[in-house]
Amino acid sequence: MSSNPYYGQEGHGPYELIDIGNLDLEEGGSLPGVQLAVATHGTLNAAKDNAILIPTWYSGTSKIMEQVYIGNGRALDPAKYFIIVVNQIGNGLSTSPHNSNGPNFPKVRIGDDVRAQHKLVTDKYGLKSLALVVGGSMGAQQTYEWAVRYPDFVKRAAPIAGTAKNTEHDFVFAETLSEAITSDPGYNGGKYGSPADVAAGLKRHAKLWTVMGWSTEFFREGRHKALGFDSMQSFVDTFMTGYFAPMDPNDLLAMAWKWQRGDVSRNTGGDLAAALGRVKAKTFVMPISHDMFFPPTDCEVEQRLIPGSQFRPLKSVCGHLGLFGVDPELLGQLDANLNELLATPA
Amino acid sequence: MSSNPYYGQEGHGPYELIDIGNLDLEEGGSLPGVQLAVATHGTLNAAKDNAILIPTWYSGTSKIMEQVYIGNGRALDPAKYFIIVVNQIGNGLSTSPHNSNGPNFPKVRIGDDVRAQHKLVTDKYGLKSLALVVGGSMGAQQTYEWAVRYPDFVKRAAPIAGTAKNTEHDFVFAETLSEAITSDPGYNGGKYGSPADVAAGLKRHAKLWTVMGWSTEFFREGRHKALGFDSMQSFVDTFMTGYFAPMDPNDLLAMAWKWQRGDVSRNTGGDLAAALGRVKAKTFVMPISHDMFFPPTDCEVEQRLIPGSQFRPLKSVCGHLGLFGVDPELLGQLDANLNELLATPA
Repeated sequence: MSSNPYYGQEGHGPYELIDIGNLDLEEGGSLPGVQLAVATHGTLNAAKDNAILIPTWYSGTSKIMEQVYIGNGRALDPAKYFIIVVNQIGNGLSTSPHNSNGPNFPKVRIGDDVRAQHKLVTDKYGLKSLALVVGGSMGAQQTYEWAVRYPDFVKRAAPIAGTAKNTEHDFVFAETLSEAITSDPGYNGGKYGSPADVAAGLKRHAKLWTVMGWSTEFFREGRHKALGFDSMQSFVDTFMTGYFAPMDPNDLLAMAWKWQRGDVSRNTGGDLAAALGRVKAKTFVMPISHDMFFPPTDCEVEQRLIPGSQFRPLKSVCGHLGLFGVDPELLGQLDANLNELLATPA
Repeated sequence: MSSNPYYGQEGHGPYELIDIGNLDLEEGGSLPGVQLAVATHGTLNAAKDNAILIPTWYSGTSKIMEQVYIGNGRALDPAKYFIIVVNQIGNGLSTSPHNSNGPNFPKVRIGDDVRAQHKLVTDKYGLKSLALVVGGSMGAQQTYEWAVRYPDFVKRAAPIAGTAKNTEHDFVFAETLSEAITSDPGYNGGKYGSPADVAAGLKRHAKLWTVMGWSTEFFREGRHKALGFDSMQSFVDTFMTGYFAPMDPNDLLAMAWKWQRGDVSRNTGGDLAAALGRVKAKTFVMPISHDMFFPPTDCEVEQRLIPGSQFRPLKSVCGHLGLFGVDPELLGQLDANLNELLATPA
């Protein structure tokens, strides 16, 4: 167990560490004394029917959800809703390799996270329903898993830029990310001293995110320069590499492994149509138009399997990493969709 | 200097090695006794006005051009045209790192290749014009360079799935390819014993090609399985890894370096509009609809700068590697366009 100041309260707080006890894992074994890092906004009403759950994405924490998605006057409005942002297992704030047993951390699946979150919201907050589950990327994977696994609990669902069953293409993409890290001799089978020992691998990982995370249009339009970087080199070195450099390699690998295997059809013996057919939540499926690895075409195929759902693609040349909030127009479209979804009786 | 049977006549012939003498390089220095590997089809007519030049792409050789693009009854018909396929410098057949000085091979640019090819077709074949220059990917980069550098020589140009000036996005993609190889300890700064020593790096390189080379639609439609592979794993391990595994790492790196820096505006002090404005060739710009790194949007911007040119995107979910010829519909569209272009008076 090592500490990593990157994940502390200073950079990612305020968050509360909530012990949910032992968690049996789908891949076998268990995680004892699981701590979920949770940030809440707003107040639970007496009827306990105004709770919104937000799970986090790969490399993301509750902080970016707070900074980019939650706010007074926004769709995710703490004045109206009790908003619970739960950091996924392995993300560095909740129980993760770097704060437990490093490279010996067990394999955790999306389903494990969702069962842990269900335990949290029922035991800790006494919830009997969620007005909305909304998340991007791996947060969308968790959103789908919630809606399939607990169809009566989830009243509305908004998976953004993610799929219910990960594609074969995306599996290989995530593998290239992991291998960029593990191929670094400094990774040393997970027994590095600090992320700095794996700097070269983390930089290659950041370059892959540069290629696939945004879009060709994003760079053609010079959006990276509009963000304040005078060159592609500076964008890669300062922004993309700087973003990932302080993160724990084993934490990233635990999330990538989980991401690769997201699949709600595990609940129905491999039948994706049956799994998505279970969903009772009012669902808006929101891919991002220029997403290179969770593209709208892949998302629309799944949307059609969800009863009463709507396909609401968000138009943005930022591609997947439009999730970072750099495109105000994307956020405007998202808020409009979420407002409409939240106003829909469920 | 080492030998590599992969590049021999058995797998990639017949081709002829033609010595064009010393080649001064744009980056400085020179290559002495440059040998261009050339495969010709058909017969040069008395007027010497029926010659077509085909340059090769990254990792490709004259063989795939012969197998997929040239044939009786096809647009590139040896019964009508004298077709000269020239292997680019560094591709393993022409003068390349593995058959000369390995990691000390000098930096070669697209412009160097095109000047070498110009010397070849004027000295060896006595040509005063080319009826058509056509190539895909890096072959498109060379096609653009030909049309800009020798505007009176090139009567028609058909750049397929490539750009005149490489984009910043594509530069980083190619960098991830190179770094997949150079980060392998077996690469050893270019002083490996054989490609097998760099097998792990070449496999990571093959996975990146799997992610970016095809398209998300290609995999969603199960086109990889239609090619005879029962799983993604098998497609990656057998087809993609098998394709690159025997290639020389330094050769691939020489080509990637060149690819990253393709830029016809070097002829006009950095002014891309001025460079493309020089083109006198009748030009059909043919990106592939689902190409993830030479996307139609990037190609159309350039097409608009070429006087009298036409934008003729080829529709195929195969993406960039539709160039491999696995989609008969793409080849049909291509042939129709080339027939029309060749029938256009120039």
